[in-house]
Amino acid sequence: MSLLVVGSVAFDAIETPFGKTDKIVGGAASYISLAASYFTQKTNLVGVVGEDFPVEFVQHLNNHGVNTEGLQVKQGEKSFFWSGKYHTDMNTRDTLITELNVLGDFDPIIPENYQNCEFLMLGNLTPKVQQTVIERLVKRPRLIVMDTMNFWMEIALDDLKETLKLVDVLAINDEEARILSGEYSLVKAAAKIQAMGPKFLIIKKGENGALLFSGKEVFFAPALPLEEVFDPTGAGDTFAGGFIGYLAKTGDISFENMKNAIIYGSAMASFCVERFGTERIIDLQQSELEERINQFKRLVRFNIGASLADGN
Amino acid sequence: MSLLVVGSVAFDAIETPFGKTDKIVGGAASYISLAASYFTQKTNLVGVVGEDFPVEFVQHLNNHGVNTEGLQVKQGEKSFFWSGKYHTDMNTRDTLITELNVLGDFDPIIPENYQNCEFLMLGNLTPKVQQTVIERLVKRPRLIVMDTMNFWMEIALDDLKETLKLVDVLAINDEEARILSGEYSLVKAAAKIQAMGPKFLIIKKGENGALLFSGKEVFFAPALPLEEVFDPTGAGDTFAGGFIGYLAKTGDISFENMKNAIIYGSAMASFCVERFGTERIIDLQQSELEERINQFKRLVRFNIGASLADGN
Repeated sequence: MSLLVVGSVAFDAIETPFGKTDKIVGGAASYISLAASYFTQKTNLVGVVGEDFPVEFVQHLNNHGVNTEGLQVKQGEKSFFWSGKYHTDMNTRDTLITELNVLGDFDPIIPENYQNCEFLMLGNLTPKVQQTVIERLVKRPRLIVMDTMNFWMEIALDDLKETLKLVDVLAINDEEARILSGEYSLVKAAAKIQAMGPKFLIIKKGENGALLFSGKEVFFAPALPLEEVFDPTGAGDTFAGGFIGYLAKTGDISFENMKNAIIYGSAMASFCVERFGTERIIDLQQSELEERINQFKRLVRFNIGASLADGN
Repeated sequence: MSLLVVGSVAFDAIETPFGKTDKIVGGAASYISLAASYFTQKTNLVGVVGEDFPVEFVQHLNNHGVNTEGLQVKQGEKSFFWSGKYHTDMNTRDTLITELNVLGDFDPIIPENYQNCEFLMLGNLTPKVQQTVIERLVKRPRLIVMDTMNFWMEIALDDLKETLKLVDVLAINDEEARILSGEYSLVKAAAKIQAMGPKFLIIKKGENGALLFSGKEVFFAPALPLEEVFDPTGAGDTFAGGFIGYLAKTGDISFENMKNAIIYGSAMASFCVERFGTERIIDLQQSELEERINQFKRLVRFNIGASLADGN
């Protein structure tokens, strides 16, 4: 089924304990659509770049079956640029530079042949822009998944709350869930956030995995224990891309199938962090993905029967 | 099969955001043997208390089938006492008081009829005392599990390394694994620590679950997402008690069965944190335990087939 991805397509400059990059391609929509492309060939991208953006990367996306007709190229302007430096623990980072550039007045234009998409993934953007995308769709998609960040909770909370009413799945990290809900317990936070609109809540915990909540149901997927996390940039977006890509592939939006989607998202994210930027997920083999899914199965499967029975 | 538990039997005074206790019964061996008692009726305890220790708690242990013949009572002396205050996140705490008292010169005497135990659980104690216990056993147990803490890594690292050579399973938390190995990556830390002696390493991550490593194999068990963590004191010991109790019950020390043991340990720990001290695990129903095991199953089970197959 067809998937619409909206989000930033941008440049990042990253420093980790393992090395440093110049400007490389990043942005939520880049990671999301690349990750989703391993599951569905019907991905349409909406975003904006400046004239400095490399055509090679757009070709990469096209080669992955991503339709970039909705990627606006602004002549005489520059692409969004973020620079950051990770601490040794890789869970925290300092932002060194943020240049909004073309994202500053981004008007998300939806090409006519993008209409009637069944799945919509809203990458992290101004909540107003996310809302505009939903309003511009002639028909509501079957499933709307939204990512956001603490920054919008601080400066645009009312807009964020309006947008939350319109979406089905919210994917945020544990710190953001605590800020948004005002609850420390993630179980309590999940209940409060669901009351704001989204029927499903994904709480991403980085190296500590991810939780999926819906009503009284909860599912947990671990992150794969890795020898080395080389660069966490884009891991959350890659996770989201694998998640919604798998749902779009299977067309099944039940809680049961979302569990599988979360495992696929986690597997995609585990590749992403192995190299800088999109390097590792731009050329992944299907067999590698299947092997990693098997690792996830081995990681969590245990075999306890229906009853403790007796013993001693 | 029979289990020998060695560790502190003591008093704690605890303050959490939810309340405050006077001196209540705590200590690693108290939690471990109570938790193990839900699996095996052949638990022998070695420890030491002062004359201030309440006989009621010893009776509780006996009612749980725990043999306390090896619990030394020192007349004219006081029991070990720890007092601490948890921060809001419940993952960090300040120690307010530590009074070693009878633990200061603890000589772990093993009663004759405790010999030939098949399982040995060494609760957190001076590494030298842990080593002495192993030396005093006429026959090496089938499985020796050891807990320790960062404190001993700082002041008794050489002793700790000697003791590590003698044990099969080490259970420590993620921070301790990083300190002991000098590696941030838990995968790398696990390899280094296994090279120090223990064939199996359990890394406890509190609300983020637990990992079991052995050679190239790894298993992950989540913690149950709870509405409220009321008091984390003793959770790690309760986990260890459930773990070794289940192994002693089943007599199977394979990696596969250790996975199940970790799930049972996690289930026991999830009860422990619901009330102060041992309050919640002193009177647990078998049906409650089974229901919680089912919650763990529902929490992590997903259903991805052998192949991604085709689609779109």
